[in-house]
Amino acid sequence: MEKTSTDALPLTVNSLEKQEAICIFGTGDFGRSLGLKMLQCGYPIVYGSRKPWMSSLLPNGAEVLSYYEAAQKSDIIIIAIHREHYDFLTKLTEVLNGKILVDVSNNLKINQYPESNAEYLAQLVPGALVVKAFNTVSAWALQSGALDASRQVFVCGNDSKAKERVMDIVRTLGLTPLDRGSLLAANEIENYPLQLFPMWRFPFYLSAVLCVFLFFYCVVRDVIYPYVYEKKDSTFRMAISIPNRIFPITALTLLALVYLPGVTAAILQLYRGTKYCRFPDWLDHWMLCRKQLGLVALGFAFLHVLYTLVIPIRYYVRWRLGNITVTQATSKKENPFSTTTAWMNDAYIALGILGFFLFVLLGITSLPSVSNTVNWREFRFIQSKLGYLTLILCTAHTLVYGGKKFLNPSNLKWHLPSAYVLALIIPCTVLVIKLILILPCIDKTLTRIRQGWERNSKSALNGRTDI
Amino acid sequence: MEKTSTDALPLTVNSLEKQEAICIFGTGDFGRSLGLKMLQCGYPIVYGSRKPWMSSLLPNGAEVLSYYEAAQKSDIIIIAIHREHYDFLTKLTEVLNGKILVDVSNNLKINQYPESNAEYLAQLVPGALVVKAFNTVSAWALQSGALDASRQVFVCGNDSKAKERVMDIVRTLGLTPLDRGSLLAANEIENYPLQLFPMWRFPFYLSAVLCVFLFFYCVVRDVIYPYVYEKKDSTFRMAISIPNRIFPITALTLLALVYLPGVTAAILQLYRGTKYCRFPDWLDHWMLCRKQLGLVALGFAFLHVLYTLVIPIRYYVRWRLGNITVTQATSKKENPFSTTTAWMNDAYIALGILGFFLFVLLGITSLPSVSNTVNWREFRFIQSKLGYLTLILCTAHTLVYGGKKFLNPSNLKWHLPSAYVLALIIPCTVLVIKLILILPCIDKTLTRIRQGWERNSKSALNGRTDI
Amino acid sequence: MEKTSTDALPLTVNSLEKQEAICIFGTGDFGRSLGLKMLQCGYPIVYGSRKPWMSSLLPNGAEVLSYYEAAQKSDIIIIAIHREHYDFLTKLTEVLNGKILVDVSNNLKINQYPESNAEYLAQLVPGALVVKAFNTVSAWALQSGALDASRQVFVCGNDSKAKERVMDIVRTLGLTPLDRGSLLAANEIENYPLQLFPMWRFPFYLSAVLCVFLFFYCVVRDVIYPYVYEKKDSTFRMAISIPNRIFPITALTLLALVYLPGVTAAILQLYRGTKYCRFPDWLDHWMLCRKQLGLVALGFAFLHVLYTLVIPIRYYVRWRLGNITVTQATSKKENPFSTTTAWMNDAYIALGILGFFLFVLLGITSLPSVSNTVNWREFRFIQSKLGYLTLILCTAHTLVYGGKKFLNPSNLKWHLPSAYVLALIIPCTVLVIKLILILPCIDKTLTRIRQGWERNSKSALNGRTDI
Repeated sequence: MEKTSTDALPLTVNSLEKQEAICIFGTGDFGRSLGLKMLQCGYPIVYGSRKPWMSSLLPNGAEVLSYYEAAQKSDIIIIAIHREHYDFLTKLTEVLNGKILVDVSNNLKINQYPESNAEYLAQLVPGALVVKAFNTVSAWALQSGALDASRQVFVCGNDSKAKERVMDIVRTLGLTPLDRGSLLAANEIENYPLQLFPMWRFPFYLSAVLCVFLFFYCVVRDVIYPYVYEKKDSTFRMAISIPNRIFPITALTLLALVYLPGVTAAILQLYRGTKYCRFPDWLDHWMLCRKQLGLVALGFAFLHVLYTLVIPIRYYVRWRLGNITVTQATSKKENPFSTTTAWMNDAYIALGILGFFLFVLLGITSLPSVSNTVNWREFRFIQSKLGYLTLILCTAHTLVYGGKKFLNPSNLKWHLPSAYVLALIIPCTVLVIKLILILPCIDKTLTRIRQGWERNSKSALNGRTDI
Repeated sequence: MEKTSTDALPLTVNSLEKQEAICIFGTGDFGRSLGLKMLQCGYPIVYGSRKPWMSSLLPNGAEVLSYYEAAQKSDIIIIAIHREHYDFLTKLTEVLNGKILVDVSNNLKINQYPESNAEYLAQLVPGALVVKAFNTVSAWALQSGALDASRQVFVCGNDSKAKERVMDIVRTLGLTPLDRGSLLAANEIENYPLQLFPMWRFPFYLSAVLCVFLFFYCVVRDVIYPYVYEKKDSTFRMAISIPNRIFPITALTLLALVYLPGVTAAILQLYRGTKYCRFPDWLDHWMLCRKQLGLVALGFAFLHVLYTLVIPIRYYVRWRLGNITVTQATSKKENPFSTTTAWMNDAYIALGILGFFLFVLLGITSLPSVSNTVNWREFRFIQSKLGYLTLILCTAHTLVYGGKKFLNPSNLKWHLPSAYVLALIIPCTVLVIKLILILPCIDKTLTRIRQGWERNSKSALNGRTDI
Repeated sequence: MEKTSTDALPLTVNSLEKQEAICIFGTGDFGRSLGLKMLQCGYPIVYGSRKPWMSSLLPNGAEVLSYYEAAQKSDIIIIAIHREHYDFLTKLTEVLNGKILVDVSNNLKINQYPESNAEYLAQLVPGALVVKAFNTVSAWALQSGALDASRQVFVCGNDSKAKERVMDIVRTLGLTPLDRGSLLAANEIENYPLQLFPMWRFPFYLSAVLCVFLFFYCVVRDVIYPYVYEKKDSTFRMAISIPNRIFPITALTLLALVYLPGVTAAILQLYRGTKYCRFPDWLDHWMLCRKQLGLVALGFAFLHVLYTLVIPIRYYVRWRLGNITVTQATSKKENPFSTTTAWMNDAYIALGILGFFLFVLLGITSLPSVSNTVNWREFRFIQSKLGYLTLILCTAHTLVYGGKKFLNPSNLKWHLPSAYVLALIIPCTVLVIKLILILPCIDKTLTRIRQGWERNSKSALNGRTDI
């Protein structure tokens, strides 16, 4: 890196002196909003424009000049122009030499161009110091001050002094600069504002499919079946009773799916005898969205809890319980107390509460600010030990709920078992495999593989004294 | 900025060598606590005092000298003195030249002086490098180590090397330095510790007024009215029944008030035909505290949920339900099942649960650590799309709750409608306006205005190729 | 600090040029995983190994050389070797002179060695610039990309340019570097990954002991006593009824224990007449884990809420309520409504809900990202004012729950009072002491002591004009 003219510039401006002017190329909406904000924070602003005589919408106090004149007035030039129009900058290379060019542009699609806009700009004007910044901020937010959303401004660039100066401006505007390293990071920074929950899509669609399937399954068993055989109108069940079957099943299945890729990976490693083989792509992707799967599962569990707790306020439930009591009172029949039923009932409720409690704990620890305060050992303890305990409790909750009715043929309607039976398939599979994997002999092999040992390698001892 | 002597100083101290001494001017409580903490972290401490021979309370191991002697011993001087007594420093300008002065002072009132204490200090001792730091830390917290609260230390200053050295000390004390840029930020940093939830005041007072008004409204309808006409003592309703009317109404009203300023601003922009006019101040302030309004609303919604879920455990409810069943059993009258009632009842409960669920989601995404991980597009999706869905669900929940009784004259007591009718006024208004605003023709105009178009401007095309 | 060769190195690499090679000493699991990750991010990797001809497991694309040759190829050398084997580096001092050595090692025990591994390394190779980094990252996480846990990489070192270069690499790997200052911080950084919830141990064990004691207490009163005297099998109570007594008692006791050290400290300060005496160690430790105590208490309170809300769904409760109604219907006895009972019952439920609501608020504000956004004044307001209000509400909830039965001799079983009576001992003590402490005369003395005044000191006036 050759010595550039920035070395001669002061690193930060003296607050008692007048702030140094900032030049903005482009008088579009974002350029105007940014300029207005900077003016409010005490920076003199010079706009560079194709037709400076036509710019009537610019904030008061800003000067408007031609590109060339504007660039002469400042060391920092913000390029608020679409990438397609960068070409004209090649004519200004002389005046832009050694200046800091701030690329604020965004694209319309992810990876729209082979290289990032900022890298393209650096190629066009090789003598300038290109810094990527401000592209994640919205013009509206800048103008209204309604920065409820992220105040973070990702900054990257190859010249650290230029970057530092841009970060100082970011701070003066009341935003938080985040240094993302060299201009290589520009691509990621440009893709960032175009994303819409990329990691949440798979969990979301999966749970939607599960819910729709279970909804129809339950409608067949609980609405159509009684209608066909008893001419009973049970459609009102679709509001609460049926969702309260769908939600716990989806929650438990998704929770089990959080732990299934882990045991799958373990089996694959045992089979291959090494950990130095890449997993198939689907398994990789699955492992990366486990957190999101778990949180969606927690959402369904939360809904299940609420739907369960409102049971006694429902008109239908009150009507039914009232009727039972009336029948009992008029028939004068004794209703003997069954300790077994009390035990089963209380046990299944208690297991559910404890499972939900641990699940909420898991959810809280996955909050970014909480997971940043735990170290790797603690994180593993929570996500692995507590996670499996949650899965065990929730599976046990479902098993005890089934109780004696479980797989009882009289519960089949049109050969369809109760919906909760479906909920048990994946969790039980995961738990059984996990149980096998933690058998001492298998666990020992797996631990060695994970520490770098290879079944078919002779040089494995090489790394013994290394980390 | 001229070359200063800091350039010759090492940027960080060598841990294997002895740490460099730090000088503290002032032997008040904060000066003593800070000195003690620094001593514990390995820094030699020299106190500068008016009457060095009288300072018996200083931590063991610290030296006490006159101001002049103390300043000679160190490059970093912490000014733990009230602003009113800064004058004496002008006599020391020679020895303070090129040294780092750390201003730790706070004021008693927000914006007490025209310029910040740190800027005032920089004016008094122009040759020194003034850094603002440590003013947000409490003496008690430093001493006890009970830093459960923020470990953040805001740092600002015009010389970046001086700032870097102070930030290294901050880190050594186990605190987290936050670089806020140049000394211009000192004013904000000095005002910060004096604030007491400035953004929460309006939501808090508004909800308090709403609650008090609704309380008296409900007491008139539910306690005084039955007492006057039926001589029935219903005062016990003030503990749960009446709060459980007040809370949901307040929650729904506040939630609607979160979205009212947005539609008001849209109408204003449509009427003015431009977005480059400032909104009135009250609208600006309202828009800035929408997050707080929403969170207060969530608090009330949470209370409503809890108050609703305890209904079946209440003595009054058990007594009433028991009586109904007994009457039914003794009169041997049939209680036919009404599918419509079951539908209405289940639907209103289900809508409430789903609305609350989305509301909780909104609340979680407004946690700073979560909102920092979403980009602007995702944030807008959550706060706008999910927000309106929440409002729709909660309004529908209230409408279905009312059901057939809604606006039924027999429900009027002393011409007062049921309280929940009041809850619907603002949400329905907001939803109707929003519905009109998203009509294609209006939406198109609004979008153009928000992209910078102006109805009365001819040069609007200028910015087309710019961002 | 003498001028080192880093001054001649560029601070950041130019993205358009080829990235500079990184050398890794050691071919263990972590060295391989880190090398693979760096290769994927575009860094050429050179491994240094004792037996370069034997290293078959290294990632494709990496070169393997002897230590000496490898060190020549790069300015940054990552030492992925256990501390016990650092000795050989003394033979390489010449080639390592002026290079950046990154210590990534961890120990097996906290404070295993007198000085940190990084400081030991700096002593061995005095000419090198040692930076501690990457030790908190797991090899598995690097390899799988499953960085759900902390992406934070603590970095410390005495040379800020060397540190900056390592932090740039950290950023390129998609991790977040956290500058922890000089190499003095290495010890803390090395201990960090070995911790397993050190602050949570005392609250956890304390609550476990409390729960076990209360469990047996309740089993004696509620299961064994009725079995002995009435031959009734009440074992099913162990699933829900008894936990729902244990949890609230534990929650309230722990909450009171959060505030007990504060009042104890105040009494101690009043007695000693100064705040410049260290508290006993147990009190210090207790004060430092108050946040954790409070959060454990919140967990128990949350369980209590869930266990309470499920009451009406329980078989036992439905059976009992049904029976009561049937008896009433058949005996045709009137069941008069008691306004007092309704008041007491509703009041205790409402107090509980409000107490729990404030408790949840306290919990939310203790989330790191939330507590970072409040200043010291706001934090004190929440934790002290709101905290005491929570304690008062929860204590009142328990008192009103007891109601008339409180200390009624007929409630004693084998001379044991109801369990909730035990819950009131500590909270009432704390509240009474606090009440005494805020009496104006005592409060005034305490405030003066906390501002630095000393009863037995004559020089206290010295600090009056200082902070």
